[in-house]
Amino acid sequence: MTHAIGSRRWAIADGYIPSSSASDDPALVSHESACVLNTGDTPAKVEITLFFSDREPAGPFRFTVAARRTVHLRFNDLDDPEPVPRDTPYASLIEADTPVVVQQTRLDSRQPSHALLSTIAYCQD
Amino acid sequence: MTHAIGSRRWAIADGYIPSSSASDDPALVSHESACVLNTGDTPAKVEITLFFSDREPAGPFRFTVAARRTVHLRFNDLDDPEPVPRDTPYASLIEADTPVVVQQTRLDSRQPSHALLSTIAYCQD
Amino acid sequence: MTHAIGSRRWAIADGYIPSSSASDDPALVSHESACVLNTGDTPAKVEITLFFSDREPAGPFRFTVAARRTVHLRFNDLDDPEPVPRDTPYASLIEADTPVVVQQTRLDSRQPSHALLSTIAYCQD
Amino acid sequence: MTHAIGSRRWAIADGYIPSSSASDDPALVSHESACVLNTGDTPAKVEITLFFSDREPAGPFRFTVAARRTVHLRFNDLDDPEPVPRDTPYASLIEADTPVVVQQTRLDSRQPSHALLSTIAYCQD
Repeated sequence: MTHAIGSRRWAIADGYIPSSSASDDPALVSHESACVLNTGDTPAKVEITLFFSDREPAGPFRFTVAARRTVHLRFNDLDDPEPVPRDTPYASLIEADTPVVVQQTRLDSRQPSHALLSTIAYCQD
Repeated sequence: MTHAIGSRRWAIADGYIPSSSASDDPALVSHESACVLNTGDTPAKVEITLFFSDREPAGPFRFTVAARRTVHLRFNDLDDPEPVPRDTPYASLIEADTPVVVQQTRLDSRQPSHALLSTIAYCQD
Repeated sequence: MTHAIGSRRWAIADGYIPSSSASDDPALVSHESACVLNTGDTPAKVEITLFFSDREPAGPFRFTVAARRTVHLRFNDLDDPEPVPRDTPYASLIEADTPVVVQQTRLDSRQPSHALLSTIAYCQD
Repeated sequence: MTHAIGSRRWAIADGYIPSSSASDDPALVSHESACVLNTGDTPAKVEITLFFSDREPAGPFRFTVAARRTVHLRFNDLDDPEPVPRDTPYASLIEADTPVVVQQTRLDSRQPSHALLSTIAYCQD
């Protein structure tokens, strides 16, 4: 391994967690993830700030991605300092103290055959 | 918060709003969104220009994203200076007076189990 | 309009057109598109080269995107110098003589409720 | 052809192969692909390293993309030095000795009408 790949600042403009799901299977419940990859040899301390259309930002939500690990963080699971509202447009800023790579994925199971979307997040150091 | 993340010029090459929807639920009507995030401390004045295959561009469509807010703008809702035609290929140029982040998402509910697509838009200052 | 947004060289690594479709509606037949936006004031002459896993590249496929227009080109419709094989992995290089923006979208209707994927293409001048 | 388009280092943060599929058709089995395009005139030697949430990385997985060819590599098919676990979050680093373009695509057929996601991977030389 040479130097870590990635950036320290990422943003995801389209956040949205549907409140309903056609399945009770935890893997198939409607959810949205920020997948964070740390290829480096030191842990990445990550802070997420959430933005909304009609209120001040929430956060920071803090977690760590250990060296040479990936964390597929479900926004559904965030609860400190507060949970993420459902059926509500939001966006997120992801800041790390060492380079990481961030990809967003949503599984929308409001209908029986679920839909997926994914995109590399936007980065800018 | 340090400086705002993003770019002042964005483009989305694949625009298309299906005219039909399997559901009357507003959340599940076929639609396309430009999700714009403004992490900065000043409002972002945004102008969208729409491009077509066989006519001159339409617009500008103007809106503001307040400081530290996100707007998930539905192209379906645009009507000033004109509405966006359905079942018609288009593309869009999004220009702001301060850095923003833009992501495109389409929900296509022509069939009972809807499909999703999303991508970070293209940016270039 | 100031200068045109975009790049002159783009690539799409995942090309694939399923040969079957659950619908005969032309809008819902399985297809893949390269959506090209030309925001500039001069026409963009575009050439696509297709790459495969086991043969030399095909093309160039040539078309023009007029000034201030978008073309949502279906790979399904290419036939000069040759058609695009179905059920066959391919990739594409899109080269223009003036800056354009390229996004790829696939509609896969092998099953009754179709699936969509889309991504901004990769660019490098 | 002028110089090859692309980058030598790519990352995909969201890897996940569902273990179940509604179809036995090999084309419709749940799978995830790294689509690699080599537009250059020399072969690209590629190494993939896989990252997980709770163990050290796996790999390198080695393959070659011949000059002017594309390989749509299914992560499902990797088995040297080890297979990719199903239903397990992972991420990948793709390194080549010459510029290539990488796009990720997942087909999720856990439900009868499958879902698709795709994104250009993240690159950084």
